[in-house]
Amino acid sequence: MRHTLDCTKWWSLPPGAENTICDVPGVQVGNADLRGPGLCSGVTAILPHGGDMFRQPVPAGLAVLNGFGKSIGLVQLAELGEIETPILLTNTFGVGPCGTALIRRAIAANPDIGRSLCTVNPLALECNDGTVNDIQALAVSEDHALAALDARGTRFAQGTVGAGSGMKTFGYAGGLGSSSRRVTLGGGAVFTLGALVLSNFGQQSALRVLGRQLPPPQDDGTENPDRGSIIIILATDAPMESRQLTRMARRSSAALGRLGSHIGHQSGDIALAFSTAQVRHRDGDDVHITQGLNERCMDAFFVATVEAVEEAVLNALWHAVPHKGYDGTTLPSFRKQATAAFGLSRDAG
Amino acid sequence: MRHTLDCTKWWSLPPGAENTICDVPGVQVGNADLRGPGLCSGVTAILPHGGDMFRQPVPAGLAVLNGFGKSIGLVQLAELGEIETPILLTNTFGVGPCGTALIRRAIAANPDIGRSLCTVNPLALECNDGTVNDIQALAVSEDHALAALDARGTRFAQGTVGAGSGMKTFGYAGGLGSSSRRVTLGGGAVFTLGALVLSNFGQQSALRVLGRQLPPPQDDGTENPDRGSIIIILATDAPMESRQLTRMARRSSAALGRLGSHIGHQSGDIALAFSTAQVRHRDGDDVHITQGLNERCMDAFFVATVEAVEEAVLNALWHAVPHKGYDGTTLPSFRKQATAAFGLSRDAG
Amino acid sequence: MRHTLDCTKWWSLPPGAENTICDVPGVQVGNADLRGPGLCSGVTAILPHGGDMFRQPVPAGLAVLNGFGKSIGLVQLAELGEIETPILLTNTFGVGPCGTALIRRAIAANPDIGRSLCTVNPLALECNDGTVNDIQALAVSEDHALAALDARGTRFAQGTVGAGSGMKTFGYAGGLGSSSRRVTLGGGAVFTLGALVLSNFGQQSALRVLGRQLPPPQDDGTENPDRGSIIIILATDAPMESRQLTRMARRSSAALGRLGSHIGHQSGDIALAFSTAQVRHRDGDDVHITQGLNERCMDAFFVATVEAVEEAVLNALWHAVPHKGYDGTTLPSFRKQATAAFGLSRDAG
Amino acid sequence: MRHTLDCTKWWSLPPGAENTICDVPGVQVGNADLRGPGLCSGVTAILPHGGDMFRQPVPAGLAVLNGFGKSIGLVQLAELGEIETPILLTNTFGVGPCGTALIRRAIAANPDIGRSLCTVNPLALECNDGTVNDIQALAVSEDHALAALDARGTRFAQGTVGAGSGMKTFGYAGGLGSSSRRVTLGGGAVFTLGALVLSNFGQQSALRVLGRQLPPPQDDGTENPDRGSIIIILATDAPMESRQLTRMARRSSAALGRLGSHIGHQSGDIALAFSTAQVRHRDGDDVHITQGLNERCMDAFFVATVEAVEEAVLNALWHAVPHKGYDGTTLPSFRKQATAAFGLSRDAG
Repeated sequence: MRHTLDCTKWWSLPPGAENTICDVPGVQVGNADLRGPGLCSGVTAILPHGGDMFRQPVPAGLAVLNGFGKSIGLVQLAELGEIETPILLTNTFGVGPCGTALIRRAIAANPDIGRSLCTVNPLALECNDGTVNDIQALAVSEDHALAALDARGTRFAQGTVGAGSGMKTFGYAGGLGSSSRRVTLGGGAVFTLGALVLSNFGQQSALRVLGRQLPPPQDDGTENPDRGSIIIILATDAPMESRQLTRMARRSSAALGRLGSHIGHQSGDIALAFSTAQVRHRDGDDVHITQGLNERCMDAFFVATVEAVEEAVLNALWHAVPHKGYDGTTLPSFRKQATAAFGLSRDAG
Repeated sequence: MRHTLDCTKWWSLPPGAENTICDVPGVQVGNADLRGPGLCSGVTAILPHGGDMFRQPVPAGLAVLNGFGKSIGLVQLAELGEIETPILLTNTFGVGPCGTALIRRAIAANPDIGRSLCTVNPLALECNDGTVNDIQALAVSEDHALAALDARGTRFAQGTVGAGSGMKTFGYAGGLGSSSRRVTLGGGAVFTLGALVLSNFGQQSALRVLGRQLPPPQDDGTENPDRGSIIIILATDAPMESRQLTRMARRSSAALGRLGSHIGHQSGDIALAFSTAQVRHRDGDDVHITQGLNERCMDAFFVATVEAVEEAVLNALWHAVPHKGYDGTTLPSFRKQATAAFGLSRDAG
Repeated sequence: MRHTLDCTKWWSLPPGAENTICDVPGVQVGNADLRGPGLCSGVTAILPHGGDMFRQPVPAGLAVLNGFGKSIGLVQLAELGEIETPILLTNTFGVGPCGTALIRRAIAANPDIGRSLCTVNPLALECNDGTVNDIQALAVSEDHALAALDARGTRFAQGTVGAGSGMKTFGYAGGLGSSSRRVTLGGGAVFTLGALVLSNFGQQSALRVLGRQLPPPQDDGTENPDRGSIIIILATDAPMESRQLTRMARRSSAALGRLGSHIGHQSGDIALAFSTAQVRHRDGDDVHITQGLNERCMDAFFVATVEAVEEAVLNALWHAVPHKGYDGTTLPSFRKQATAAFGLSRDAG
Repeated sequence: MRHTLDCTKWWSLPPGAENTICDVPGVQVGNADLRGPGLCSGVTAILPHGGDMFRQPVPAGLAVLNGFGKSIGLVQLAELGEIETPILLTNTFGVGPCGTALIRRAIAANPDIGRSLCTVNPLALECNDGTVNDIQALAVSEDHALAALDARGTRFAQGTVGAGSGMKTFGYAGGLGSSSRRVTLGGGAVFTLGALVLSNFGQQSALRVLGRQLPPPQDDGTENPDRGSIIIILATDAPMESRQLTRMARRSSAALGRLGSHIGHQSGDIALAFSTAQVRHRDGDDVHITQGLNERCMDAFFVATVEAVEEAVLNALWHAVPHKGYDGTTLPSFRKQATAAFGLSRDAG
């Protein structure tokens, strides 16, 4: 699934077996596409584990690199340091139905929610696919959200699929990308860091591919300003607490810088990290035994984060198959342009 | 509209003419009630001004005193320091439809949103009225949101109305309350600070009314833990920038303390402040002339905030008329209990 | 050591054996007084445990309620969620020497600091005792800091001693106060929450003593604005992570509100919380076994925090013996005024 | 003063006349060197304007990219959004004396500080020059701080001078660097963005020079982990409020990413931005007339920030002349290595 860019010197850490976020044991991803006249959007679901997330939330951290956007659930995540539903990604006007779908699912599994139990905090994040998709149609429904949840698995398509269907990255088609890194600590323990991005940011002329500038397909001076966003989901099986996950999430900004972004004013650049190693038990004892990760180990995960996020965005670009937009135009293909400029072979992917 | 508690010594600043948030010129409030079998909820709208909020946003600040809850739009408010739609308050599972309603209204007024213009950031906040209302019915719809917006005006009911219909405050019925204070600066200028609360927090035995403890109506040891929330909206006509509004919003926690709250773990205690004096013009010049408020003046507004928020909660309690809950029980009346305990007259309100 | 205000109904949780922060096992406090012509200041040291804090830091959290002031070390505390030196409190121009003293002590115990080891983060916080003490003399030295560290023990004086020597609280003399609460969880486990305050805030006419207003000793309209600060140190033996400690520290604002404060514009109101139950081992394994506290237990600690901070401030007032200020004036005595106004007995303390 | 790396395609915005932070009118910089047996350190002063900073503070914003370190004054800067003294940079154990020197200078100019006026908030930031300098000597004194302030001017040396004397950047000698960019807004107005860095971060093998990897001078597998820090000072004459300056400061992380950093765990990476266009007048009217910058203009300044910070670090490297360290070793020269690897000419600088 890896692209063919020569990156053996650019990155220092090895990827996991599939080079996706699902290399972190237990993590699953599902896509649902939304297509129709003028419509090209979708929903992507990320599940930290296969159990009941409300009964067994996972520790999580959050970094709002730039707070443009309409995500639901971030305030409670920051306060409690946990995720208690699957994560849904979709387009900017679809967070309402996605949040409601997560609430219904949680109530179906836990009928006491909002009664003897507290309410549930759904987590829905978004980018604006309005270049390709007619967002004013408000077409994303609860059904698309449920379809993405039901399509979950450990293998999933990347590029212009699911929530990434209509997204635009550095002026090219492409939205959903993933990558992973294996981290070996000084004491010998091996953990995995996985990244999944919904990538919809960047100006075409600013893109750096492993440090190299890619000549834009056309250079007629009509380049639009960077108005996009990126949602970054990080997963690890290392036993981090939420503060450590927050620190790790913040390193995503360095990856955006390497790709050429200045983290635009109208960009909703949000990174969210969770650990699968420390599942919490809502009904557990007052005091429980758990694991902790020595803070000195964080550097290795910071390197892994920068590399995995950078590669995940490149993977989103590489796997994209451009769709015709609602106004008839089609975004250019990164793979085609990069292949021409850098002499890449075409048989990969 | 003021309650009859003897507060002349407790508070130091005079209220505005109506003692509501609408004493701040331009601010309007609208309520829509939702009633039905098992249903007792609603929506409350706050409009900073009567114009197009998307074209003319107002500066705003935010304090998340405790981040439990599912509000929409806070991340962008914190980043840009502004509000670009009316504010909707509702119950905890109603933020999705309220957010969507605000998006539709904004698109109707500005058809280029999400096309040549950027998207719009709706602002919907919530408390959980699940003691009285059957929240699993997910009954709040876009229509209720629109009805609240259309009911806007400078006079509005308080207590168990609109979003406050099914709310519970310190164990008593009552959700929507408001108050205001006039602030005279050293140089003679007079400004107004208005507060509106959606109050749904506090343990009955912890309540302090102007420093006095109120014996609970029944004391059978079955008191529930504090699981509620409070949304606090502050408005002023003083020319504050968003940082100053944020500082002011943070003072709400002192008011909660005076009332007896410990700002509970499962409480979504969120304060939001805006200024009507510095309307921004999205299409204005790159550099514009504006006003600034000397930082030394903030103390007067901090006092006003603590007093207005404290009184707004007491007003929510005073004006409440208890509704029968979805499970047949009815919350007790604060006015009845306070009148009995403190010897208040009954003819006020 | 408890004051004689009738508080049995006002507070709900029992204090620890000494009703000070040292009820948390392992915590020690030391005072050093600085006196001289025009000089009335000092240093107070708080030690989370008796071991080498650099080798064995403790988890910690931080809440900046209002960020006026010159404290050293807060940025790293917030990032790493830990304290790696004792905590020193002093006057506003004394943080430099206190920070340097902590660095020297840490290097003496760990000669590799800044060489093969990283540097050390000292923690020094301050209030402005400039009403009583001539702060322009910059009289606090490293020696005072070392004296406070060396004076550590589990019993310590309160009121106008140590860093509290020249402090002013709600217009009265008094700076150093402490209190504690025992917290019994649902599962039966018992923990302690201790508070120590360096109290230097509040306007005289705004003070509320257990909900009651105290008539100022003189009421000649010359009251100064609230320019003071409060530093709040919270300790617990409950196994909280830094995020939970941060949540707990934030509840201090409710206690300030109960006392009558509006958290003044020029106030450095900073709360810092640490847990002695989770000592970290800098040289420990990459992954270690530790304990965690179920989030639902936090409410009990939030109540304890509000009560202990409120009482610690009252204790600072109660134990104060006013000193003559550098300009010849003497602050009034709270005990005298409260005794007269509330009819308290004089034999307590 | 510009280095000779071919950057005409890498950056998009033109530099100011001197390509330093002093291209922003009014800004001055001063260096003081500290040399002696085992000692190689210093102080650098940045003055936003030539007047009395306490009477006329400037709006400022702050981004703590990673909060390792011992800076003084950041908490109040974040609260009030302003700078009220010059900024001093020095080594990690020198912030105490630098803070005290700023306090003494402010009192000398304003004898009522801490009496009828409030206290003053000094601003001292640091990196750890412990590879070259014997930091355990605690050799930085108030005199060095005063010497740096007195050496202020609009031209200043870069590289291994002032606070940058003993600093290490990506394994090479070099600490102090600066750069600037001119920003032309859509409406034609032209502003300047200046950056000055105290650069002490990065792993040698990770460095990217305009996207290209630089082979380390020796590659014996003994590379030390990234334990350094970077302090970033941004200045502009655009009329930004503190919230906008904060947004701008946060973009520095993208520049660090472009250079190859992962923002290390033990790194104190702090960016601070101020505007000279909105000098505040402490004794001014309650309400004053000021200017505001339309938010849509921020993107241009974000690009300028990323470019100027990236170039400022490269300038710190380029201008460095390695000093012998306290243990006899000498850091390698970047200019020598880059010239050899990239075929640069030697006559520049």
